[in-house]
Amino acid sequence: MDKVIFIGAGNVACHLAPALHEAGYDIVQVFSRTEPSACNLAEQIGARFTTALAAIDPTADVYLYAVTDSALPGLAARVNAPDALHLHTSGSTGLDVFAGHARHFGVLYPLQTFSKHKAIRFPEINFFIEGNDDFARRKVREMASTLSRHVQELDSAGRKRMHLAAVFACNFTNHLYEIAAELLAEAGIDFRVMLPLIDETTEKIKTLSPYEAQTGPAVRNDRNITDKHLALLAGKRELETIYCLLTDDIHAIHQKGQNP
Amino acid sequence: MDKVIFIGAGNVACHLAPALHEAGYDIVQVFSRTEPSACNLAEQIGARFTTALAAIDPTADVYLYAVTDSALPGLAARVNAPDALHLHTSGSTGLDVFAGHARHFGVLYPLQTFSKHKAIRFPEINFFIEGNDDFARRKVREMASTLSRHVQELDSAGRKRMHLAAVFACNFTNHLYEIAAELLAEAGIDFRVMLPLIDETTEKIKTLSPYEAQTGPAVRNDRNITDKHLALLAGKRELETIYCLLTDDIHAIHQKGQNP
Repeated sequence: MDKVIFIGAGNVACHLAPALHEAGYDIVQVFSRTEPSACNLAEQIGARFTTALAAIDPTADVYLYAVTDSALPGLAARVNAPDALHLHTSGSTGLDVFAGHARHFGVLYPLQTFSKHKAIRFPEINFFIEGNDDFARRKVREMASTLSRHVQELDSAGRKRMHLAAVFACNFTNHLYEIAAELLAEAGIDFRVMLPLIDETTEKIKTLSPYEAQTGPAVRNDRNITDKHLALLAGKRELETIYCLLTDDIHAIHQKGQNP
Repeated sequence: MDKVIFIGAGNVACHLAPALHEAGYDIVQVFSRTEPSACNLAEQIGARFTTALAAIDPTADVYLYAVTDSALPGLAARVNAPDALHLHTSGSTGLDVFAGHARHFGVLYPLQTFSKHKAIRFPEINFFIEGNDDFARRKVREMASTLSRHVQELDSAGRKRMHLAAVFACNFTNHLYEIAAELLAEAGIDFRVMLPLIDETTEKIKTLSPYEAQTGPAVRNDRNITDKHLALLAGKRELETIYCLLTDDIHAIHQKGQNP
C-alpha cells in the first residue's frame, strides 16, 4: 500500500488517519505545528511525527493535507515532494492550490462534521473527489473507496457550493440548537426534551422535501405568535434580528410557492 | 371513556384525534370552518362533523381546540359548554384564554412537528400539560398518558419559551435545510447527499452539548472561507445577512466561552 503522510492533526485528520490506517494504508508520519496533537495522532496509528516542516519525509507516495483553509496554501507551497500525490480535504479550497508545486494532486472531501469525542461511521459518508490527471483521479478514488461506497467526482466550484450548503445544514443548524438550549436553560428546562422533536425534523426530510416538511408560525404567517416570540428575545445579542430574518425568509419562499 | 369534540382539523388535529380514538376516547364530533378537512378527519375516526359553530354538540365532556393561535380566543369564547373541560394544544397561548368561558380548562401541548403525510410515533413525544384546577390537571394528565409516558406539567410562561426554542430547533432548522436544498439545486446536486451529514449533526447532540458539537468556519473564525461563501450568496434574498448574523453569533458565543 502507498506510504502516506498526514499534514495536520485536527478533527478531520484524527478521524481520517485512523480510518485509512485501519484500511491498510501505511501512514508513516504526521506533521502538525502543535506537538501534542501531532504526537497523539501519530502514536494512535504507529507513525512518526514532526512539528518541523523541514523534517517532513520527502519519500512518501501521498501527502494528505487536513488543515484549515488559511494554512493550506502556505503548506502546499512548502512541502517539497514534487513527484508525489498531494491531496487536501477542504470544501472551499480549489484543486489549484497545489498547481505549480506538484505533478499529481487532488481533493478528498468528506461531507461530514467531525468532533474529537464522537466516532464516525465512514461507510455512510459521501466523499467528493477531484484530481488534476488520470493518475490522481484513480488514486483518490481508490483511497475514498476503501472508506465508503459513496464516492463521486465534483469539481472545485461545485464543492465550494456544497460546502456552503453544508454550513447551513450542519453548522448553522447546530447553532440553532445552541440557541434553543440557551432559551430552555433560562426557563430551567433540560435541552434533551427537544431531542424527539429534532429527530422528527430530521426524519421528515427523508420522505418529504424540506419545503413540504415546513410547519410553524412563520409558514402560517401567524404574527400573533411571532410578536410574542420577539418580545422574549429582546436584548439577547442579535437573536431578534435572526428570528425576523428567518421568519421573513420562510414566509417569502412559501408565499411565492417556490419549491427548491 | 369521555366524549370528546375536536375544534379544528389541521395538522395537529389530524394526528392527535386518530391517536386518541385508537386509545379509546369517544370522539363524537369534529368542527372546522373548512368542510373537506372536517369531513375527512371525522370519517377517519367515525365521528360527525360540522362547519357551524352553533351546531357544536354542547353535551361533550371534553372540547379539544387544535387551531391557530389567532383563531383560539374567538372560538374559546363561542363554544358554549361551560361545565365541560376545555383544552388547547398551543405552545404560545396562555391557559387563561379559557378564563371566563369555562369552569375547567387546561393545555395539552405536544412538543412535535406534525405534517399531514408523515406518521408520528406518539409514545416518543414529550407532552407538556397545564390545568386550572385539580380536575383539569388530572383529566389532561390522563389523556396525555394514554399517548406517551413523557408527560410533565409546565406553566404558560415556560411553555411559551419552550415553543420559541422549538421554532429555532425545528422550523428554523428545517428552513436551513430549505436553503441548503436551494443552493445544491443550483449546482445540480441532489439534496439527499446531505442526509448523512444532517443525521450526524443530530446524532452528535445526543452525546455532546450543541456547544461542544459545533464545527466549521464560523467557530474557527476562518474569514478566508466565510468571505468565499458570502460571495456565493450575493443577490439571494437576505441570505448574505442571515449568513453573517449566524456566523457572528457562533463566533460571539464561542469566543466568550459561554456554554449554555
